[in-house]
Amino acid sequence: MNPAIFFDALQHELQRIQYGQQPPELYNPIQYIMDIGGKRMRPLLTLMAAYLFTDNWQKAVRPALAIEVFHNFTLMHDDIMDKAPLRRGQPTVHEKWNENIAILSGDVMLVNAYQLLLHVEADKLRPALERFSRTAAEVCEGQQLDMNFESRWDVTETEYIDMIRLKTSVLLGYALELGGLIAGADDETTQHLYAGGMNIGVGFQLKDDLLDVYGDPAKFGKQVGGDIIANKKTFLLIEALQQAKGSLKDELIGWLNQKDFDKAEKVQAVTSIYDQLGIRQLTEARIGEYFARGFTNFEAVKADADRKKLLIQFAKQLVERES
Amino acid sequence: MNPAIFFDALQHELQRIQYGQQPPELYNPIQYIMDIGGKRMRPLLTLMAAYLFTDNWQKAVRPALAIEVFHNFTLMHDDIMDKAPLRRGQPTVHEKWNENIAILSGDVMLVNAYQLLLHVEADKLRPALERFSRTAAEVCEGQQLDMNFESRWDVTETEYIDMIRLKTSVLLGYALELGGLIAGADDETTQHLYAGGMNIGVGFQLKDDLLDVYGDPAKFGKQVGGDIIANKKTFLLIEALQQAKGSLKDELIGWLNQKDFDKAEKVQAVTSIYDQLGIRQLTEARIGEYFARGFTNFEAVKADADRKKLLIQFAKQLVERES
Repeated sequence: MNPAIFFDALQHELQRIQYGQQPPELYNPIQYIMDIGGKRMRPLLTLMAAYLFTDNWQKAVRPALAIEVFHNFTLMHDDIMDKAPLRRGQPTVHEKWNENIAILSGDVMLVNAYQLLLHVEADKLRPALERFSRTAAEVCEGQQLDMNFESRWDVTETEYIDMIRLKTSVLLGYALELGGLIAGADDETTQHLYAGGMNIGVGFQLKDDLLDVYGDPAKFGKQVGGDIIANKKTFLLIEALQQAKGSLKDELIGWLNQKDFDKAEKVQAVTSIYDQLGIRQLTEARIGEYFARGFTNFEAVKADADRKKLLIQFAKQLVERES
Repeated sequence: MNPAIFFDALQHELQRIQYGQQPPELYNPIQYIMDIGGKRMRPLLTLMAAYLFTDNWQKAVRPALAIEVFHNFTLMHDDIMDKAPLRRGQPTVHEKWNENIAILSGDVMLVNAYQLLLHVEADKLRPALERFSRTAAEVCEGQQLDMNFESRWDVTETEYIDMIRLKTSVLLGYALELGGLIAGADDETTQHLYAGGMNIGVGFQLKDDLLDVYGDPAKFGKQVGGDIIANKKTFLLIEALQQAKGSLKDELIGWLNQKDFDKAEKVQAVTSIYDQLGIRQLTEARIGEYFARGFTNFEAVKADADRKKLLIQFAKQLVERES
């Protein structure tokens, strides 16, 4: 089995989805954000999880895309809240159209996500929807916590991990859980899949934080140091704020409060503080822990060894990514 | 049967609903907007429709509240888009908190609505959710059309009716349809209920437009003429724009373009133009038509006469309201 087949199935089905017709101001932004692309990581996880237990993984395609549509809905609304001008290098919906349209198109996308999820078979419909709804609410909780953290300097590691767990990881967990559920896996198995997705998801987000500072500029798609320039409260900054003492702490806080600065100089200075505090090693260790937990969860899943290998290979790519 | 029992059941259950706990910034606005009140018209329609066919109307209470939560979600997001400072005399969520919180709390409310709807029994779950999702998307379409109309002076009656059908009436139709569905009514019956709710809903919205101009100030809760002052594109204004000719049309357009005016003077002048064009009679006639269609739909519903009387009495109150 070539995993590209899963990707092609998703892309093919994405072309066929009718989000709606009229008025175009409402539906064009949905087509736009869905067409910008992305790695389709979440629905791929759903299909791979389904394939662990059934040859008929195709029946998971529409429900898998529910997760992709939901994910893009959160991006559309988050971009309004973050006043982000660009998403994957293209103008965000509220920039290209306006804020009201981004609010309302996003609302319809959340409805569209539920509509796609209604393609789950009758005997699994209620649990699929209940768990999706719980997950969707958690993603919103994570976004709210993230916004709350913007005005706080005393966020702890525990609080931060809990935030990314909600904002990012639960949806990866649910993507896998849903695939298992649709394919008829038992509760214990879907719980292992969920936990695996969640742990990989936390590691994935921490890696995102790490790459922003220590990524290879030649391989990393975005500007290295972007989070430092923006004072973004990443795992690295939170750890540095907790651990720095004396003059090093004063220096760090000085950079955070600096209004007018040379970007390259700030990136270099803050990175140097991270280096002195061993933040890179600490972050890598924590990423390693979460990924290890995730793979332990996957080991506990009873399924055909070759099919499990596919899923584990895919998860490894997420782990080892450099962009 | 005293209809107050339905209202009390809804209020009692509303007290018991847990929208979520943490973070409070996300969930307090939901409790706030649900506590501001309102007539609970939509869930009342659901319970009355269920009671037509079953003594166990209580099983419709949570699904009925899904509609009320959904309706309040649309109010929360519409108020952002309309930059409305007040809702039912209280500060709107984006005013009391901020826009981001109003976006995100609204998103969770839409999820909460689906969670409440998941209390529908298994054999009716899929149709209940499919029809709800279709209706929810239509309500968003109606809101988008309403926003589109703001910048147009050539909106036709047909376009306007189609907009209010989507923005307001389909949800009233669905409220009745859902009650019938839950109580085990057949497709033909739920379709009559839906059509009845929709027609009453169009009449209800047209009556809203009418009362804003011709309401009794002693009975009408809001300022009479508010729509005229704001150049709101109501049924009355659209008809007047279509029908006025020559100097009367110039006078009307003059008032619409006036930036600086005495409010009472504008209300009086535009009302006088409406009077000269017979807009009041035309609007009343159209309201009468939609209400008559709605009651014809209800007549076609085969159910116990006394129970039907309850529903028809309630609909009559909506028809005859003066505020």
